[in-house]
Amino acid sequence: MSIFRVDMSQKTVMSEAEPKGKILGGRALVDYLLIEYGTPTVHPLSQESLFIVAPGLLAGTGAPQSGRLSIGGKSPLTGGIREANVGGAAAHKLSRLGITGIMVEGRCKDWQILKIEAQGAILESAGDIVGLTNYPACDKLRERYGDKVDIILTGPAGEMRLANSTVAVTDPDGRPCRHAARGGLGAVMAAKGLKAIVIDDTGGKVRKPIEGEAFKVAAKAATDAIKSGPATNALHTLGTAMWVDSDNGRGSLPTNNHHLGSFEKHENINATKFTELVKARGGSFGHGCLPGCIVQCSTVFNDQSGKFLTAALEYETIGMLGSNLGIDDLDAIARMDRKCDELGIDTIELGNTIGILNDAGLFEFGDVKKAESYLEEIEQGTAMGRILGSGVAVTAKAFGIDRVPAVKGLGIPAHAARSSKGWAVTYATSPQGADHTAGGVAVEHLSAEGQGDRSRISQIRMAAFDATGLCLFTFLSAASNLIVPMINALHGMKWSEEDYLEFGKDILRQERDFNLKAGIGPGADRLPDWVMREPLPPTNAVFDVPQEDVDSIFNF
Amino acid sequence: MSIFRVDMSQKTVMSEAEPKGKILGGRALVDYLLIEYGTPTVHPLSQESLFIVAPGLLAGTGAPQSGRLSIGGKSPLTGGIREANVGGAAAHKLSRLGITGIMVEGRCKDWQILKIEAQGAILESAGDIVGLTNYPACDKLRERYGDKVDIILTGPAGEMRLANSTVAVTDPDGRPCRHAARGGLGAVMAAKGLKAIVIDDTGGKVRKPIEGEAFKVAAKAATDAIKSGPATNALHTLGTAMWVDSDNGRGSLPTNNHHLGSFEKHENINATKFTELVKARGGSFGHGCLPGCIVQCSTVFNDQSGKFLTAALEYETIGMLGSNLGIDDLDAIARMDRKCDELGIDTIELGNTIGILNDAGLFEFGDVKKAESYLEEIEQGTAMGRILGSGVAVTAKAFGIDRVPAVKGLGIPAHAARSSKGWAVTYATSPQGADHTAGGVAVEHLSAEGQGDRSRISQIRMAAFDATGLCLFTFLSAASNLIVPMINALHGMKWSEEDYLEFGKDILRQERDFNLKAGIGPGADRLPDWVMREPLPPTNAVFDVPQEDVDSIFNF
Repeated sequence: MSIFRVDMSQKTVMSEAEPKGKILGGRALVDYLLIEYGTPTVHPLSQESLFIVAPGLLAGTGAPQSGRLSIGGKSPLTGGIREANVGGAAAHKLSRLGITGIMVEGRCKDWQILKIEAQGAILESAGDIVGLTNYPACDKLRERYGDKVDIILTGPAGEMRLANSTVAVTDPDGRPCRHAARGGLGAVMAAKGLKAIVIDDTGGKVRKPIEGEAFKVAAKAATDAIKSGPATNALHTLGTAMWVDSDNGRGSLPTNNHHLGSFEKHENINATKFTELVKARGGSFGHGCLPGCIVQCSTVFNDQSGKFLTAALEYETIGMLGSNLGIDDLDAIARMDRKCDELGIDTIELGNTIGILNDAGLFEFGDVKKAESYLEEIEQGTAMGRILGSGVAVTAKAFGIDRVPAVKGLGIPAHAARSSKGWAVTYATSPQGADHTAGGVAVEHLSAEGQGDRSRISQIRMAAFDATGLCLFTFLSAASNLIVPMINALHGMKWSEEDYLEFGKDILRQERDFNLKAGIGPGADRLPDWVMREPLPPTNAVFDVPQEDVDSIFNF
Repeated sequence: MSIFRVDMSQKTVMSEAEPKGKILGGRALVDYLLIEYGTPTVHPLSQESLFIVAPGLLAGTGAPQSGRLSIGGKSPLTGGIREANVGGAAAHKLSRLGITGIMVEGRCKDWQILKIEAQGAILESAGDIVGLTNYPACDKLRERYGDKVDIILTGPAGEMRLANSTVAVTDPDGRPCRHAARGGLGAVMAAKGLKAIVIDDTGGKVRKPIEGEAFKVAAKAATDAIKSGPATNALHTLGTAMWVDSDNGRGSLPTNNHHLGSFEKHENINATKFTELVKARGGSFGHGCLPGCIVQCSTVFNDQSGKFLTAALEYETIGMLGSNLGIDDLDAIARMDRKCDELGIDTIELGNTIGILNDAGLFEFGDVKKAESYLEEIEQGTAMGRILGSGVAVTAKAFGIDRVPAVKGLGIPAHAARSSKGWAVTYATSPQGADHTAGGVAVEHLSAEGQGDRSRISQIRMAAFDATGLCLFTFLSAASNLIVPMINALHGMKWSEEDYLEFGKDILRQERDFNLKAGIGPGADRLPDWVMREPLPPTNAVFDVPQEDVDSIFNF
């Protein structure tokens, strides 16, 4: 296994042996490369900044749900370290080609494609791919490189170097609907002059675990656990839209720019309605975003004429572009989701961004036309579009808005901070910014007690987990006692669960240290002031976890 | 002496005794109030944020050059603590009314005027002052409150809550041409709902030093030193424009978006040309911005028809709106200066902001019309204007520009970092951001050696000095051995020079601690990466002061 170092300034690709004695993959590999080769103080879009692609440490194997791909760099939104992971088949394929990770350095002015195949990797001119939105760009790339390739690409928002831009990855059907969405890594990729990475794994091989039999046993145990997991069937049949009703019920569904925690029209955007529309229009449930997925929570959403509109209309998108904007029209939400996928824009950040325009008198809740017109502005690169495409914190600054739903520059996701208090501790303290996947805490959501401990444990587990390349929905079913045996058998190691958690702690420590060196001190581990002050109906919760509990997160 | 606490939410003004046992004024008082009563983590425009007005600790006396007024708050540009000081007569008048400082809390939605007179202070509706630019606003306020009042006000940029907005103070001629310009404090004032502070000092009294005779002696010694000071005559006869030639000569005059350190057309914007135009048009030199000023470096610049255009066209403005934009037309620079004074916009930040638009293909160096059109956009509050009015860091983000001339979000002033290396250490490390008054270092400007020590000493001295209310140009002539006796005689103390420097160190420590609590860690004490990499013609200097020297600044 080796690491590809791509120097965009020299237009060279070098293969290096992966570092010895380290178990690196996914988030851990992102961190390792950024710390070993990067400089925390450089501008995220500087020539000295790094762009990282890192399959998880179980990628390329038969481990269930193991194909998440980590994308990493210094975030243009937070100014800190950033890892965002995504489904698709790219991680498996890279791993099967013997690639542990890709580190992209330098920059060039003429857009390039990195073509990776069994024979090696080369940079080629991107040519007429540039300027296309993501779906047509992928079509054209397949015309050029063949139908079977998988594609990692930055979209028009990234090309514009907008801070809220994603890295898209094609799903098993070739659609660029899976996104390493949060933190603006699309702009980091684009700042290198790298438009896309195209992977053809012809001749690639499934990775052979060092202890083959033990691996099979461990993978089967994990598979069985996932199959019978508490959320698996619901996710398979409803998709993540299933959380609309539950978050709404507990007062955690962001509504009208985080002014409410439940949406009176939630029945127009919940899983029941979603299912009805999907079925009526010939869409479908039960897709896998990863090859070999068991949960298969992905969905295909067609428009009123039965034509494909978007894949995987996720809970976070429904919450942030739906209820948070007072919009109860799933078609409109799906259109915006598709547009975001085309441009390479994170829907969570965008929902926060359009939401606060209400404070500036520039958006009325429920105004679908206006919301869609703002996406048009981003596409056209108008001054307004550039503001909005730069994320919620910049938009707030430009319009002098002080009620900013963000931590460290990253917009708050669709589990309301005030009524999901454990989760909110994670938003406040994660080195990644306000990230709903950095350490979810669903229990005792209205209680202020014990949330520091819960968030700490969850963040440590998620840090380790994000290195594995396993899907988050594995985590709901398969605890570390099922994960560690797979790692051990693959790599021929003898990690205890304790070792695995220590690995997670190291990840968090490194990330915090990177942020510190980048100028982000512990004082930035705070939710915005208004969540402490403003009760959130209907629970009327405020964020009241004791400050010492929030500050205790890194006591490990 | 007392502190006025203005609660904008309740529309009340309370007078409190100043804290016992503390020598507070200017920057020291700003810091004290922000730390004692403020919360470092709140949004700068939040209702919980504070806005501070603080005369220096020698204000209201006969000490020469002692009328600088400190304005303070949490900066919308840096997110850290901010003190910006300004001339005018307001500081003296407040002090003569027995007011040590003003702390504004809370906020109201209907704009208010704080009227201060000997009888006390009240809040009144701002009425039709709102929306006016600064000169007409001051005319109207004098119609309402009488010709003799001094005015502290936020302009249209502040009303728009733009991060690059100033607090204007009227000069002895009643013109709002003196600005506490840097850091965006105009928006902080505006966020309180406070449009202006109007001061009528009828019945006010010159402060009586505790040791009257000693004070007279000390003040005379300082006065004599200033009169015979090395720069006094030059500043009196040429204004600060005198630095155009000297900075140009040493390769430190920012030119064409910091791409050059000297400007081939510098003779069109230097003191010689400036003097020629001032004289030909009936303008004048030798104005004082403070009552009783000895240096009198301020100038009146008339337009081609001989009509008043602007007062005090300063070096920093000429550098940042002139050479840094490739503009060699003093009339154009003066028009932009006037427009900035009208709107309440910092010229240093704006010059950086328009300069980087060249990287986005939106500005050609020397294009006066375009530069002026951008000021129009700010005035009109267009989306483009809101980007530009938010300062250079936000503008860079919106346009994806990674070559950002800023530290901690504050634009780099007109002594180029690469060829004024000691000064650059101050830009990097000052808790105030890239501030040319936070600790200038002019000597050995191209040497990388000893600059950490020089910057440290200069920053400590300037921190103490910014508490005194003395003008910076006193500092050039009167060292602490002349300042300390005035403080001692006024307050009846026995400070040694050592004590005075310790006072300066405390100020820096407090500010750094505030920033740390606000989330800004020591890793933010860095110049942007490109100044380490990109040689600056004609000296071809890069910033190469050893990192350990930069990091040693707070070792005291």
